[in-house]
Amino acid sequence: MRLHGYFRSSAAYRVRIALGLKGLSAEHLFRHLRKGEQRAPDYLKLNPQGLVPTLETDDGRALTQSLAIVEWLDETHPQQPLLPQDAFQRARVRAFAYAIACEIHPVQNLKVLNRVRALGGEEATQAWAKEINAEGLAACEQMIAQEPGPFCFGAAPTLADICLVPQLGNARRFGVDVSAFPRLLQAEAAGRALPAFADAAPEKQPDAE
Amino acid sequence: MRLHGYFRSSAAYRVRIALGLKGLSAEHLFRHLRKGEQRAPDYLKLNPQGLVPTLETDDGRALTQSLAIVEWLDETHPQQPLLPQDAFQRARVRAFAYAIACEIHPVQNLKVLNRVRALGGEEATQAWAKEINAEGLAACEQMIAQEPGPFCFGAAPTLADICLVPQLGNARRFGVDVSAFPRLLQAEAAGRALPAFADAAPEKQPDAE
Repeated sequence: MRLHGYFRSSAAYRVRIALGLKGLSAEHLFRHLRKGEQRAPDYLKLNPQGLVPTLETDDGRALTQSLAIVEWLDETHPQQPLLPQDAFQRARVRAFAYAIACEIHPVQNLKVLNRVRALGGEEATQAWAKEINAEGLAACEQMIAQEPGPFCFGAAPTLADICLVPQLGNARRFGVDVSAFPRLLQAEAAGRALPAFADAAPEKQPDAE
Repeated sequence: MRLHGYFRSSAAYRVRIALGLKGLSAEHLFRHLRKGEQRAPDYLKLNPQGLVPTLETDDGRALTQSLAIVEWLDETHPQQPLLPQDAFQRARVRAFAYAIACEIHPVQNLKVLNRVRALGGEEATQAWAKEINAEGLAACEQMIAQEPGPFCFGAAPTLADICLVPQLGNARRFGVDVSAFPRLLQAEAAGRALPAFADAAPEKQPDAE
């Protein structure tokens, strides 16, 4: 498999964690988002959205969208499941993941922040990103407040943790006081203690700046 | 089941379509988003994010996030499956759904547009919403250009169509020239010909204005 990513992309980071949890390796290719390498014509053939990540499978087919890739990895490599067996708990794990992937991350990604900057300047952009992260993560804290730890949902990492750990990294970069989210920090610590999470961290990637 | 929604919420609309495709009925409760009813304390207990939809199950448990609810409905009511059997095709359907639910919808929802309006005024807000929809749907058109119709992925509606039809409604409201997306329009027409889609339309809801 070949994973097209970028060290700082939260979405690529999610797929790196999932590959690690599944014990799978992939060739890593890097698309420098700030240089616009995700808009190169050859890459757009693989990923018409011009986003990272894209996973090329062993038979040369391309999969896009990090959560679709993670669900595919989970369905095709069932060991170390990333979703609970129970349908209701699966829905709760997915809801938590989407609370990040559909509500926080897209509203503070590079592309959207460039739009905000054009409208309101740098200070407004930083405030936007900080507020989106702080509000979104406050809801996430509530969503798992009653769940047993140490991970988001119990004793093993799931899709929820795969989304949470990269997002907390963003939140810190934007100056959010994450100490307000003790349950999220507990889950993050449990994740980061595992090689799959630690090795997937942005600063560990060959393209890190 | 009880579905907390709002006539114009694309996310609630998705769940209404899925319920219809599954032949399931639910009591519909409406939370007026522009009046802030989704921030009422009793509702926040069900949905800490303060968003619609929330689905209360028959045994009184609450599920949030439209795509998590749709996947749950699909897992617990397997007739008329909303995802293909093949894992790779499932991933492609999910990727298309997320290209809408993670990349277009959240960047042009009411909450984000209120932020944009505060920064740049009404004209910039309308331009923002129109551009996000036009760019996002152009990528979606590419993603299914080679797929047999009439639906997004073949002969039956899937999670992809459930996300597409509400988003095309938004795109039109924001003045996007959707005639640039013939493949999407083909899928939309196939969907809207089904009662599950037609009955779920915003203008058919009791709270429509």
